[in-house]
Amino acid sequence: MKKIKVHEGRAYYPMPCAVVGAKIGEKANYLTVAWFSMVNPDPPYLAIAMNKAHYTNLGIKTNRTFSLNIPSVDIAEKVDYCGLVSGKKFDKATIFETFYGELETAPMVKECPFNVECRLVQTVELPAEDLFIGEIITAYCDENCLTGGTPDLKKINSFILSMPDKRYRALGQDIGSAWDMGKKHIKK
Amino acid sequence: MKKIKVHEGRAYYPMPCAVVGAKIGEKANYLTVAWFSMVNPDPPYLAIAMNKAHYTNLGIKTNRTFSLNIPSVDIAEKVDYCGLVSGKKFDKATIFETFYGELETAPMVKECPFNVECRLVQTVELPAEDLFIGEIITAYCDENCLTGGTPDLKKINSFILSMPDKRYRALGQDIGSAWDMGKKHIKK
Repeated sequence: MKKIKVHEGRAYYPMPCAVVGAKIGEKANYLTVAWFSMVNPDPPYLAIAMNKAHYTNLGIKTNRTFSLNIPSVDIAEKVDYCGLVSGKKFDKATIFETFYGELETAPMVKECPFNVECRLVQTVELPAEDLFIGEIITAYCDENCLTGGTPDLKKINSFILSMPDKRYRALGQDIGSAWDMGKKHIKK
Repeated sequence: MKKIKVHEGRAYYPMPCAVVGAKIGEKANYLTVAWFSMVNPDPPYLAIAMNKAHYTNLGIKTNRTFSLNIPSVDIAEKVDYCGLVSGKKFDKATIFETFYGELETAPMVKECPFNVECRLVQTVELPAEDLFIGEIITAYCDENCLTGGTPDLKKINSFILSMPDKRYRALGQDIGSAWDMGKKHIKK
């Protein structure tokens, strides 16, 4: 297949979707993000890239805490809303039910089946973004999304952002077992 | 729904899958990764967290270049293989057809429909991982995965890693339009 040079402005892959929570003044604020990843296993660190213009960044910098909330397909419209408007102008605390955990300044979204609260470890300054690296202090999961006491992504029923076509997509067909299906290629 | 505290060792979300390419000595080496994200739009930066023990890290540090290759469902077994064995012991250059772009030291996987070659901008040292931040210099896409000259994730047919159940999953049902379906919640 012929390789064609395309605009180098983005990498295209299935981007996870989440809602970041931060407290600004006395209020919870929420922002939808797709640029995040686990970055360290132990201690468990998460990194989230957020454009410096976002209102939510202020809360993270002030309290040095934030949450990451993994939504289900059912609430995709509300999640999308949190990426459409700024907390500077709209009170996004009212769109979800908020709960707090151990950190007290990392508001979490009750409607999202999986939530982690993080303490900020480091901020990497990039040209347009703050890359916030946080340590996961506590993780929460809806009781009905557990299998054998462990979070179950099928039950969480999360979705991804497909770019550049700007579509949300549910997870589809099981195509195999990780750290397993490639064993046939190992030459003894 | 009742929230249950679960082990805080990870955040669970649909993790994207990719193959990182680096040159070590005269050879291409490939490693499967799931902990990566775009982190800056312009200039376009990608960040990839890779455990310091990986052989591939050496190539990235030496040449200060790497590639990220987005695979399709069709080659999931080969992608899984690249996460099972180390380039210290196995010659992973032979599992894929390699091509080089402008950077000359960032081997790319021809069988992956979408590829970017990156120049290392910064390495953030985390407890167990190197967080490599690279600028995308050139992006390539298979001609048959373009729609109107732009990469099309449906045609690329990529997959995600579901954790903690360790399953690869294809992308599923379209559930709506991003930056759009939430507009009904905007109060005028």
